[in-house]
Amino acid sequence: MLDITASDRLAVKSFATKTPVFVCVISYTATSEISGLTVAGANAELVKYTSPADAEFLYHGCCSCINVVPATPDGKPTPALITRTALQLARVPLLVVDAGAKVKPSIPYISFGVEPGRNIINENAMDISSVKRAFEHGELLGKQLAIMSDLIVIGESIPGGTTTALAVLRGLGIDARFKVSSSMPENPHNLKNRVVDSAIERVTADGIGRISSPFEAISAFGDPMMASVAGIASGVLSASGKVMLAGGTQMSAVLAILKLLDRSLNGLYIGTTTYVTKDPSSDLSGLVRMISERVPILSCDLHLGESSKPGLQAFAKGFVKEGVGAGGASIVAITKSRGKITGKKLMNAIEKEYEISIEAVPH
Amino acid sequence: MLDITASDRLAVKSFATKTPVFVCVISYTATSEISGLTVAGANAELVKYTSPADAEFLYHGCCSCINVVPATPDGKPTPALITRTALQLARVPLLVVDAGAKVKPSIPYISFGVEPGRNIINENAMDISSVKRAFEHGELLGKQLAIMSDLIVIGESIPGGTTTALAVLRGLGIDARFKVSSSMPENPHNLKNRVVDSAIERVTADGIGRISSPFEAISAFGDPMMASVAGIASGVLSASGKVMLAGGTQMSAVLAILKLLDRSLNGLYIGTTTYVTKDPSSDLSGLVRMISERVPILSCDLHLGESSKPGLQAFAKGFVKEGVGAGGASIVAITKSRGKITGKKLMNAIEKEYEISIEAVPH
Repeated sequence: MLDITASDRLAVKSFATKTPVFVCVISYTATSEISGLTVAGANAELVKYTSPADAEFLYHGCCSCINVVPATPDGKPTPALITRTALQLARVPLLVVDAGAKVKPSIPYISFGVEPGRNIINENAMDISSVKRAFEHGELLGKQLAIMSDLIVIGESIPGGTTTALAVLRGLGIDARFKVSSSMPENPHNLKNRVVDSAIERVTADGIGRISSPFEAISAFGDPMMASVAGIASGVLSASGKVMLAGGTQMSAVLAILKLLDRSLNGLYIGTTTYVTKDPSSDLSGLVRMISERVPILSCDLHLGESSKPGLQAFAKGFVKEGVGAGGASIVAITKSRGKITGKKLMNAIEKEYEISIEAVPH
Repeated sequence: MLDITASDRLAVKSFATKTPVFVCVISYTATSEISGLTVAGANAELVKYTSPADAEFLYHGCCSCINVVPATPDGKPTPALITRTALQLARVPLLVVDAGAKVKPSIPYISFGVEPGRNIINENAMDISSVKRAFEHGELLGKQLAIMSDLIVIGESIPGGTTTALAVLRGLGIDARFKVSSSMPENPHNLKNRVVDSAIERVTADGIGRISSPFEAISAFGDPMMASVAGIASGVLSASGKVMLAGGTQMSAVLAILKLLDRSLNGLYIGTTTYVTKDPSSDLSGLVRMISERVPILSCDLHLGESSKPGLQAFAKGFVKEGVGAGGASIVAITKSRGKITGKKLMNAIEKEYEISIEAVPH
């Protein structure tokens, strides 16, 4: 399919979808409050609104919980803009899961009944019972979704999520240092490594010692998004369905969790943008291969570098890159339309959405 | 289709479904606390657990929020037993919507962010803003579901719901007295009429005068279930989808709301059990015909009178009769299977579920 590239040619051929459902999991980790870690929100006070505002934007093209569309401090818009455009263009149905968002969105959302994640520098991210609850609720939902749909695409919105991903991967013995992605072109690897080092020291100092299960790793170092996304994916896979983890390096933590839980990874795909797969400051493919040789990575070229809008060009210049399942939603829009929608057509539609939602709205 | 009867032969022919989705809306009205109004719960203290326990039962075949399966005081089981069996037998996917349940279930549920309904004798059931919120959230969800599925079946669990239905119908100028159904063979019509009379007097005494819109009627006399179910149905219909309101006389209030909102009723069905349509103490068909000549009523004969289990025979003797979308779920199981599932096959499976969930569990 034009504009979709993949790590495995056979996998792309076998990858078809007629009845995809897109699930956006919104969440929160207090780890995002560490200064310099994320730009997913105009400032620290606004970060808690980012994920619910993303979810509202997917439904409405505008937000209720804040009076602006989520953006970086210098105005680069949320990738939800891409996701919304792709879902609307290809008529892909949308469900939102709340996995511990600090502020609840004004749209119908599926509750997993979990609290926001805590700052992993100071304390465990979640109680183990919460991790299990999120995972089990995810499995229940995933099993139902697998009956409805031939492909469940799971995106996420959680500021600070690449740091907790790095921490969980390291907790599970996977050296992901300098491999996780960032919403900034200057990837703050050193800061992320320092945060994760202190979290690991905290756990070791607590005398807990080596992490022995994926649930323990999430509890100590993770966030509610991972537990929930892993649960949904596990539920779909157990019902012989297909799942696309729509995101960048954060999704490799979910993959590691599923692998260590001995789930069959048949039917599992990772879907993202070329802004992640070609990012010189991170290594999604290297990360995924450390976990599984088999899981295909699909990526979509959105041609945003050719856009006339500076806010969209920025995606091709290393800003934002991915999030809210933007890459996966685009891949699925192209695939569901059997190629009638191309990356360029999508880009034109994204520009229109940008004009309506961003440019036409007074700031 | 064997065991399905209908008010309109042509409608049954046109009624086919391959990809149904079942939505169970759980809710609460403090009106149910009036003594003698409902037996949906072993006693007044337990009534608030009935709808979340029903939802948990649909997923798990047992309940978490209470340690028993919901039942009448003398042990007649919840109709969720029928619904669960039908959904499982025909592999119909399930989603639960929380529209103001007082206790939240331990399963993934879609939140509409509304509060439980108040006792209509004392005060308005809901603020008008809550009514609109529930309706609008319902429409958002319904539009997404209509993309996923060729038939959205909406069931409900709200103790006391026939009384608020009667009140809303009367508020809208439809004389539903002695026509609404009951979970008891001795339908407490006089008590219901007295409750509704006082609610109407309260509103008139407040100087509000005549109710001029369906939203006002729900606000004064209704409950969050109605607003939510009407919203979901409206969303599906607006996307040219098909909806089955799966329930007894409560669903006629939803129908009246949709009709007065000028929604097209093309593609709308009512689905219930023959225990409702043949009930001598209520008149579903008469109620529906007062609202619309066109909406077909489908009903399913579950042969429970032939069961060896007294708890199931009771359904054929005027107890419980319907609820949690039992009739609609059964109709859809039969239709989706193209008649391979019959009322008798369903009855046998319901008996097995009864043995596992009710008889094998210590009380």
